[in-house]
Amino acid sequence: MHNGELKHRLNEIIFGTETTEGRIFDVVLICLILTSVLVLMLESLDAISQSYFIYLRVAEWAFTIIFTVEYMVRFYCSPKPFKYASSFYGAIDLLSILPSYLSLLIPGANYLLIVRILRVLRVFRILKLVRYLGEANVLMRSMFMARRKILVFFFSVLVLSVIFGSLMYIVEGPQNGFSSIPTSVYWTIVTITTVGYGDITPQTPLGQLVAALAMLTGYSIIAVPTGILTAELTQEISRDRARRRCPHCHHAGHDIDSNYCRHCGGALDLESAT
Amino acid sequence: MHNGELKHRLNEIIFGTETTEGRIFDVVLICLILTSVLVLMLESLDAISQSYFIYLRVAEWAFTIIFTVEYMVRFYCSPKPFKYASSFYGAIDLLSILPSYLSLLIPGANYLLIVRILRVLRVFRILKLVRYLGEANVLMRSMFMARRKILVFFFSVLVLSVIFGSLMYIVEGPQNGFSSIPTSVYWTIVTITTVGYGDITPQTPLGQLVAALAMLTGYSIIAVPTGILTAELTQEISRDRARRRCPHCHHAGHDIDSNYCRHCGGALDLESAT
Amino acid sequence: MHNGELKHRLNEIIFGTETTEGRIFDVVLICLILTSVLVLMLESLDAISQSYFIYLRVAEWAFTIIFTVEYMVRFYCSPKPFKYASSFYGAIDLLSILPSYLSLLIPGANYLLIVRILRVLRVFRILKLVRYLGEANVLMRSMFMARRKILVFFFSVLVLSVIFGSLMYIVEGPQNGFSSIPTSVYWTIVTITTVGYGDITPQTPLGQLVAALAMLTGYSIIAVPTGILTAELTQEISRDRARRRCPHCHHAGHDIDSNYCRHCGGALDLESAT
Amino acid sequence: MHNGELKHRLNEIIFGTETTEGRIFDVVLICLILTSVLVLMLESLDAISQSYFIYLRVAEWAFTIIFTVEYMVRFYCSPKPFKYASSFYGAIDLLSILPSYLSLLIPGANYLLIVRILRVLRVFRILKLVRYLGEANVLMRSMFMARRKILVFFFSVLVLSVIFGSLMYIVEGPQNGFSSIPTSVYWTIVTITTVGYGDITPQTPLGQLVAALAMLTGYSIIAVPTGILTAELTQEISRDRARRRCPHCHHAGHDIDSNYCRHCGGALDLESAT
Repeated sequence: MHNGELKHRLNEIIFGTETTEGRIFDVVLICLILTSVLVLMLESLDAISQSYFIYLRVAEWAFTIIFTVEYMVRFYCSPKPFKYASSFYGAIDLLSILPSYLSLLIPGANYLLIVRILRVLRVFRILKLVRYLGEANVLMRSMFMARRKILVFFFSVLVLSVIFGSLMYIVEGPQNGFSSIPTSVYWTIVTITTVGYGDITPQTPLGQLVAALAMLTGYSIIAVPTGILTAELTQEISRDRARRRCPHCHHAGHDIDSNYCRHCGGALDLESAT
Repeated sequence: MHNGELKHRLNEIIFGTETTEGRIFDVVLICLILTSVLVLMLESLDAISQSYFIYLRVAEWAFTIIFTVEYMVRFYCSPKPFKYASSFYGAIDLLSILPSYLSLLIPGANYLLIVRILRVLRVFRILKLVRYLGEANVLMRSMFMARRKILVFFFSVLVLSVIFGSLMYIVEGPQNGFSSIPTSVYWTIVTITTVGYGDITPQTPLGQLVAALAMLTGYSIIAVPTGILTAELTQEISRDRARRRCPHCHHAGHDIDSNYCRHCGGALDLESAT
Repeated sequence: MHNGELKHRLNEIIFGTETTEGRIFDVVLICLILTSVLVLMLESLDAISQSYFIYLRVAEWAFTIIFTVEYMVRFYCSPKPFKYASSFYGAIDLLSILPSYLSLLIPGANYLLIVRILRVLRVFRILKLVRYLGEANVLMRSMFMARRKILVFFFSVLVLSVIFGSLMYIVEGPQNGFSSIPTSVYWTIVTITTVGYGDITPQTPLGQLVAALAMLTGYSIIAVPTGILTAELTQEISRDRARRRCPHCHHAGHDIDSNYCRHCGGALDLESAT
Repeated sequence: MHNGELKHRLNEIIFGTETTEGRIFDVVLICLILTSVLVLMLESLDAISQSYFIYLRVAEWAFTIIFTVEYMVRFYCSPKPFKYASSFYGAIDLLSILPSYLSLLIPGANYLLIVRILRVLRVFRILKLVRYLGEANVLMRSMFMARRKILVFFFSVLVLSVIFGSLMYIVEGPQNGFSSIPTSVYWTIVTITTVGYGDITPQTPLGQLVAALAMLTGYSIIAVPTGILTAELTQEISRDRARRRCPHCHHAGHDIDSNYCRHCGGALDLESAT
């Protein structure tokens, strides 16, 4: 087989999803990624880690070698190898194999802890899965449209957290668990987001009043991100509809599953939806 | 009475809701189901279970016999018995009587525990109630329309939970309650869904920072399912209000300003909206 | 003054809000209601109750006598006294004075507890305030339109709670705090609504898995009531707009604060909004 | 340089954002404000406060002097100085420097606590940042449009909290942590907003039933603020997109299909939409 032809063929299988082989490759890859994450999780369980240490180690190295080969083939068959290497998925592909090799280079007394820190990056391997789901686009576009409003919202929540946190630090003080302003800000975020662990709780009546205000504030402003996203999403869906146009009367606004124009009754193309 | 006639009559009463007898049968059945669930609950209370053990046992067996007879009659009077038996409600009807009989076959020292495991399936009997509520349709259709977006959302939440969970396992470690990655992922789900039990809480400043990020993430992405469902529901309700049905293919769900059926292309009546 | 005239005058002041006297009466009444609730709250605080027992008692009896006189006058000046007495507000007016008198009739060793139970009904006095706010109408109408969907939703939450609760009772069992099915159902509601007290938490890995599923379910179905209400409210607001109709070109759909018709430019009546 | 010219130039730099110098000034100011808040936070951490006490003090006084000079210049170069001083941002600018000076005037044994109370006001300095974000306008307008509905909602939540709180005080009583009605109301707010600390939890079956009802209520009414805001925001965004402005009275916020200004009745250009 010609070299360029092999490259093209591999590219179709590994990057593409049109051929049967491409789809099989993708499904196998997803299974491998999920299994490797599972092995990582099992290793963190003490009981399992002690009994099956060797098997887990072997499995992890097997996955590392498979993913290394995969990375090399991706790099080789890519039309512009360095563009792939510097892309988002290229970086994640690299980060998901690097920590295992680094754990060899940095041995020693405290190697366990370091290996764990590096290993956690391998979890990003799971992110690869996102690429297999196209439905995320409408959601992503809505969030992109609303990005500035969401930023303003997050900034407001932070300002509110700092103010409420400082207020609680003054009102309750270190003797009631609000040991410093950062801790109080952490408590405020726990409260405003309605998580409410209960590891730190107000003890004085005044503190409980301020806390109640913070809760009601958080309870109300949860409406803001929802409102923003819903409004954008409603527009995005109606825009999706608007994009479908009748080839006969050029009337727009057909649902994605419509067969005939709702205005003139003419048949709609399957390709009229973009 | 003729055999086929009896079958038809029983079918009307048991499966139908048009006749007075059919409605009475349904109401009586609902009451029986709810009472049997109540008996099951009471039996789990130690104080009540010890005093009234015999009565509860008798009641449970009475319910089991009644529901067994009901299942047999349903099977008998159904036009296609095996289609009924393999349907969703047929399976639930069977599962709600089987555990009681199985508890007879499997006696022994640990019978109590096993009976309980089997018995819990009888709670599904309550699911029968759903069939009596037609309003659920608009909700179901909206969820069906949004099923792929909801799937993408759930997958994203799981990916986020695994990443945040692993991060917290590294940052906090087993000495602060984050004993393994699965436990940390459980903690992340508790945090992201804003449940916040407080049985495991971050102790280090860095851990509290990561936790605050996870909370803010969870607080924001709660907007996503709401936005998706609201956008779909708004369209579904306005279509439901229009209540236009094609006179040719009887397909529903046309917009108020449509002239032709979007399914078969036939002309819609002006009077088709009610 | 003529008797019928007096009745009419009193009716205007007490039930009406058109005259200056009527408005003053309403404001004074709201202040009295809020103060009486405050007195009730202070009485429950041990420190305050012991020092100012006499003053609080006197205040409570003063409020009781004032509200009794008010109730009698309302009854007297009402055109159809018994219709008033059997109305929602008539019942609340009566319930907010009755417990104080009942506390006289039922003395004894355990009088304190009984008085408290009766007294709590007096808190309903605060409900009177709702009648002074007209804005609640759009909200109420939206909720009324969505009442059947909300019912289906509540029923689904209950069914889910019973199923998840029973499942957790089997999985975790009494030794981990899930002492009975009703307690487990209570835990499920705490979890599904994302309250998460943390007084009962799953200890086994399987229990934590089921709990995580319950949380994600609760996190998702919170979208349902929001979606329902938002969809109804959007329609209600647009219907509110639609009700405004131009007197010149009969074009509908004007905002509540518009001065001129957006279609023909003609001046809109102030009365065109209903 | 002429005095009036200097004033005008300073005004452009300090209040304006059109010139390069004005933008640089703003960015530097934002950095200074954020750093001063950070210093305040570090000072509250015991470990850091003891080691770097002198540095933090010096830094705080440096910020105080810088912000004092800034306040004086703002006051000097403002066209109407006293209008500035009495404006919202003028008041915040003053409040963010005053507490430091007051801490000098009020020394003594308990000075630390008082200084802290005053110092917390300096956190409001961060509020200055809001002025640099224009995107907040759509959010603010939506909230303004919905202000009366939001008020009705908050009032309803308070009434519900008082009723549920009193009910729980009767049902559970002081022996289960519900020590007074105000505490019970605090617990109800914690529950209804789905925060759920778990510092106070119902112990009796009846209390758990009432608590479950309160949770389901809170879980449902969270839909209300979301619904209100979403409905308003949807209208506000679609109007913002239309961006039509009346050529006669320059009033914005016209629908895409309006022919005449809804404010002055003047004809709208077809090109007024951008």
